[in-house]
Order: sequence, then structure tokens, then C-alpha cells
Amino acid sequence: MSCLAERGWAGSTVTVVAERAGVSRGAAQHHFPTREDLFTAAVEYVAEERSTALRALFPQGAANRRAVIGALVDLYTGPLFRAALHLWVAASNEDQLGTRVTELEGRVGRETHRIAVELLGADESVPGVRETVQGLLDMARGLGLANLLTDDATRRRRVVAQWAALLDSALDGAFDSAPD
Amino acid sequence: MSCLAERGWAGSTVTVVAERAGVSRGAAQHHFPTREDLFTAAVEYVAEERSTALRALFPQGAANRRAVIGALVDLYTGPLFRAALHLWVAASNEDQLGTRVTELEGRVGRETHRIAVELLGADESVPGVRETVQGLLDMARGLGLANLLTDDATRRRRVVAQWAALLDSALDGAFDSAPD
Repeated sequence: MSCLAERGWAGSTVTVVAERAGVSRGAAQHHFPTREDLFTAAVEYVAEERSTALRALFPQGAANRRAVIGALVDLYTGPLFRAALHLWVAASNEDQLGTRVTELEGRVGRETHRIAVELLGADESVPGVRETVQGLLDMARGLGLANLLTDDATRRRRVVAQWAALLDSALDGAFDSAPD
Repeated sequence: MSCLAERGWAGSTVTVVAERAGVSRGAAQHHFPTREDLFTAAVEYVAEERSTALRALFPQGAANRRAVIGALVDLYTGPLFRAALHLWVAASNEDQLGTRVTELEGRVGRETHRIAVELLGADESVPGVRETVQGLLDMARGLGLANLLTDDATRRRRVVAQWAALLDSALDGAFDSAPD
């Protein structure tokens, strides 16, 4: 993952990773025949680790919704997001990788949405709630992108505080926000 | 721009662009000595064109705030965003390009924020309003990313409708959303 984050897709080969990991190239290729296999597996593994850690952080679920929103946003501003972004962008120009990453994006996206709904105590049977949560995750993804070249933490903290307040009210049904 | 969108940074050289544009490599290099010059200039040019077009689309400003929000999101889901994304991601691993793109990101970001505030009729002297608008643009950026590998238009339409309703209420001061 750090190889992908630091060198991008073009600079990340099985050989480079095997060297860093201190294993032979043959051993690496035994487990992951292609670099598509290696890197999609790495992103999926770390994404799952992150999901488990996030659930463990809030055993009480929606007890503190603003803290949950902060933690969800944090998912998109660390090295996992940076590595995944390299994979996504490379996938947009390479058909073979594209198919793999599209499936991966679907699985990771659905799982993150499930966790978000659960930890936020969001009732998706209420019209608009599903889209409210999806928009939050889209915003988190955009905040991750804004953090790619510069440290955007100060601005991000303010944006997240404001939107956490807006979303908290929206999820409590404080006002009618059904789309036209 | 289409070269960057289709081939990524690694596949985009001055030679490739000169060929597509039907000019000699020497002529291209006379105007843009390096490919960093060429591609940052291209992104900036198209971003400015887009800003002008967006202002022209809403001469009345905040008359229809939800339509403005839709148009702002559209800025991030077309070929400009795709091309810029390739440049951003490449810049995160190349120091020289990084400096140029960071400056460019700052200029384009400030200009987009200015337009958003103006067209939404947002009063930034009210606490939280600045961050509300920033969060919208972050969400738009995230929606752009979600559209990279698959056509996300159907989901996006629903998310934008919901967030437009949230934003409309927030900007009208329909409820207290000041951060803690």
C-alpha cells in the first residue's frame, strides 16, 4: 500500500513490493500472479481492516453522531485513500485493471455505506436519508482529494464540523428535506 | 485535455498533443517549453472557460438555487475533472509538477468558491455559511471521483437533489447549524 501511495501505479511492480516486503519475487508471484491481483487484494484487505477498526471504535453506534462523521471522513484522508486513488486513476485508462477495480469499488463502497448507516443510526426507510448518507461519503471522498497535494486538515475540520451539524439535524428529521 | 483524460499523465507528452493538434513539436514547444507548462496551462484555460460559461448560465444568480447546485456538480463530472484528476494524482508523486499543480489548485479552487457563493446568494458573514458552501464543493469533487470508472449519473441525481434541499434550508437559515 505504501508503495502504491508513494510511487503510483506506474512505479509499483510486484518486484518492487517483494523487495520491500523482504520476500522473493517468486514467492510474491506464487500468491499474486499479476500485479492487478496483488494491488486489488491489498486495497481490499486494508479496507476491511479499516472497517473492523471503525466498528470497534463505536461499539455504541450513534451515541455521538458527530464523532462518527469525523471518523468516516478520516477513512478518506489517510494512506489507504491515497493508495486507492492511484489504483482508481490507473484503472480508468486500463481495461483489465478497470474491471477489477470497478468490482472492488462496488464492494468497498457498499460496505462503507452499511457501516455509516449503522454507526449514524440512520433510518433508511425515511425518504432522503439514504441519499443524505451517500452525500456525506461523497463529501468525505472529495475532502480526501483536497488533501492529496497539501495538508488540508484545518479547513477540513471546519467543513466537517459544519456539515456534521447540518447532517445531525437532517437525520433527526429536524426539517423536511425530501427532494422535489 | 482529452489526451490527459484518455491516456493519463504518463501517456501525455508534448509530442502526442502536437500530433493531435496538427502542429509541429517545435511549435508546441515554442509556446510551452515543458509538458508541465502545457498541461497546467490547458487545465487553467479550460477551468476559466467553464467559470465564464457557468456565470453566463445564471445571469440572475440565486434565482434557482437548486439548478445552480446541479450546475456546480456538473463541473466535476465532465472531461475537465477527469483530466485534472490525472494531473493531480501525477503531481502527488512528482515534486516539480506538485508545486505547479498546488498553485493551480489554489487559484481554480478560490475562483470556483467565489462563483458558488455568488450564484447561490450565500452570505458568508453568517457563521457556518462559508463552510456549508465549501462542503458542497467537496461533495461535488467526491461525486466526480465516483463517476470515474462507472456512469454514476442516476445515483448522483438523487444525492444532489437531497443535498440541494439540505443546502437550501441551511443557506436560508432554516435551522441553527453553527458548529459546536
